Amino acid sequence: MKLEKIGIVHSCFKVKFGTPRQGSLALHSRGYIEIEKRWEASKSLQGLEEFSHLWVLFWFHGNTNLTYKPVVRPPRLPASRVGAFASRSPLRPNPIGLSLVKLDRIEGSRVYISSLDLIEGTPVLDIKPYIHEYDSVEDSKCGWVENLSPQKLQVEFTDEAIQQIQSHPYPNLKQTIIDILSSDIRNRNDRSERNTGKILGFYFSDLNILFQTTEGKVRVLKIEGLLADNDHR
Amino acid sequence: MKLEKIGIVHSCFKVKFGTPRQGSLALHSRGYIEIEKRWEASKSLQGLEEFSHLWVLFWFHGNTNLTYKPVVRPPRLPASRVGAFASRSPLRPNPIGLSLVKLDRIEGSRVYISSLDLIEGTPVLDIKPYIHEYDSVEDSKCGWVENLSPQKLQVEFTDEAIQQIQSHPYPNLKQTIIDILSSDIRNRNDRSERNTGKILGFYFSDLNILFQTTEGKVRVLKIEGLLADNDHR
Repeated sequence: MKLEKIGIVHSCFKVKFGTPRQGSLALHSRGYIEIEKRWEASKSLQGLEEFSHLWVLFWFHGNTNLTYKPVVRPPRLPASRVGAFASRSPLRPNPIGLSLVKLDRIEGSRVYISSLDLIEGTPVLDIKPYIHEYDSVEDSKCGWVENLSPQKLQVEFTDEAIQQIQSHPYPNLKQTIIDILSSDIRNRNDRSERNTGKILGFYFSDLNILFQTTEGKVRVLKIEGLLADNDHR
Repeated sequence: MKLEKIGIVHSCFKVKFGTPRQGSLALHSRGYIEIEKRWEASKSLQGLEEFSHLWVLFWFHGNTNLTYKPVVRPPRLPASRVGAFASRSPLRPNPIGLSLVKLDRIEGSRVYISSLDLIEGTPVLDIKPYIHEYDSVEDSKCGWVENLSPQKLQVEFTDEAIQQIQSHPYPNLKQTIIDILSSDIRNRNDRSERNTGKILGFYFSDLNILFQTTEGKVRVLKIEGLLADNDHR
């Protein structure tokens, strides 16, 4: 059982830090899947444009050094441990991810998507249409995930940051930054008391967004230009 | 990108003929996934029992001789053609299937499931919990699938068949047979006029179920014993 790459993700998310745990947390995140020539996009994507949502099966390519762990510690419930098959952790026997994304449009071999949680360069294994009748259960029980507190951080901006956002062409940039930062994206170390107020940055599109977290509040300080990246607009 | 098998499906469905296109069409279908020893089920399944539904990622193992087809003819809409990525066809670059099933219980390394569309012997690649918040969209558009007529065949039984069903231990056997046969399972050739009334059989659990289809109606004629199969009860 060997896998073929069908294409690659180009995304507003450049690295893991700052990439949401699920696409629905950042509705205005954008990207596209570039289908490889050998799969004949003009044929194989036929009819897909009539669906509003897609499943993307992808390879967790950032995990080359990580091995399978039968038990994992969910980032959102760090005090507990659950089995790999009871989680969406990348540390699985087969590091295949499953994401539900919104389909915006198709142009040639490019499938433009939004509301995604996929990182730049992710190898795509499959695209399947979301079929509500097959893929949804009205009355389900969702184990430990139901016990998570939906606690959100409040996100504020400096005047400087606001100005920088207003002059940037990314659509709904301010709301997207709020969506990303309102889930605490810091690692365990940076959440410790001695690191309160530490200035951190995350890459988004062609930007490095500098922020500071203190007691339930995130302050976006300034936004630095990064690489040119017109890919996903 | 190489895949590891995490386990094998044992199912009431023994062959492709008679296996429903989706699990929700046969709520009482039953089976289990036997997790291989090396994945340490006692750890890796921890917490899974608190979920009501699972995603099963599997390998379409019946398709060893079949190659990728960029355009397919959906069995339920034979007059039209859609791209492989706009369908759930097994003829994909990576023949990975995605099924939503109901979790009944876990016993050691066995994950008992129902409402499945998986065939005996299917290699399983991954199990992920169904998380309604991530995996469901309320307001979706489902392309060509929305245009399918939900036409169902009426299913009748001979007295002989009814008696045989009543003496068989499989739970809800009659309803399960109705669920399976009310979607016309015949291939294109057997649907042709000259084959009207032809007696066909499909394997289910340890049974061969003989039936005859005429003008919108299926008649279950008799039920023959097959192999011993106590596996999935």
